Amino acid sequence: MIINLSEIGRIYSPFKKIEGMPVQPIGAEEVKGEIHVSKEYEKGLKDIDGFSHLTLIYYLHKCEGHNLEVTPFLDNSAHGVFATRSPKRPNNLGISVVQLDKVEGNILHISNVDVLDGTPVIDIKPYVPQLYEKTVKNLKVGWFENKHGDAVNKKADKRFL
Amino acid sequence: MIINLSEIGRIYSPFKKIEGMPVQPIGAEEVKGEIHVSKEYEKGLKDIDGFSHLTLIYYLHKCEGHNLEVTPFLDNSAHGVFATRSPKRPNNLGISVVQLDKVEGNILHISNVDVLDGTPVIDIKPYVPQLYEKTVKNLKVGWFENKHGDAVNKKADKRFL
Repeated sequence: MIINLSEIGRIYSPFKKIEGMPVQPIGAEEVKGEIHVSKEYEKGLKDIDGFSHLTLIYYLHKCEGHNLEVTPFLDNSAHGVFATRSPKRPNNLGISVVQLDKVEGNILHISNVDVLDGTPVIDIKPYVPQLYEKTVKNLKVGWFENKHGDAVNKKADKRFL
Repeated sequence: MIINLSEIGRIYSPFKKIEGMPVQPIGAEEVKGEIHVSKEYEKGLKDIDGFSHLTLIYYLHKCEGHNLEVTPFLDNSAHGVFATRSPKRPNNLGISVVQLDKVEGNILHISNVDVLDGTPVIDIKPYVPQLYEKTVKNLKVGWFENKHGDAVNKKADKRFL
């Protein structure tokens, strides 16, 4: 099945190129950005200002193609792409949880932005962990186990361009 | 920008129709399902068995079109669609966190499945909350505040068909 999506807006951030970007949200604390939602979708933002955090789905527009096995930024060995958050993946979609600071019409002011400037947004959902957190028991995070702490300072290189 | 995606597999679940489905993951605890990843992507699953939970992005293939304001299952008043998890949204994408029980070749056995049988999967990512949880401070969940507990027993009706 082929699925056609349209962007609903764009994300603007201080990251003009992939190289040097934070590789995960915890490396992007306090980084400010904006989402400019297309005017035609502005009515869909009603009451979004009651939420402190949003989950964004966006299109990794600078990544072309994909690799099925990748050596991610946080490790030295190769893993299947679906066991990583590598951007060079089938369908090239990214997810981030960002902080919503203020809403002005069709513009959302956000923080903790680990996204490239000009990234097309596909969907915006309220972040409500209460809806699934209780189902998460005995969490295991595979090869991230002793690596996720490194994500705070790790920056991207060109490997996924 | 128009974005073309291809399904990477299908999700199979006990839910053959939308009516009567759980509306959120906490209403689907213990519900078993399978993801059949297309053979061409099987190599991308290497090492995924180290993770206990996965984040799925899927296409809500039974929803056509969208409403910008919706009255969600958990409330009696209308909200902007981006302040809800209504499936009838621009681009009709859903996100769920599911438990990974076992991997057999290209088949992932999963639990906590709040997804319709036959749903096309767009992406599979490891669930690693350590990568963003520390950035989430002073959580506010808007109109869900006194409602999210109701999601345990709430079932879907036909309103988003």
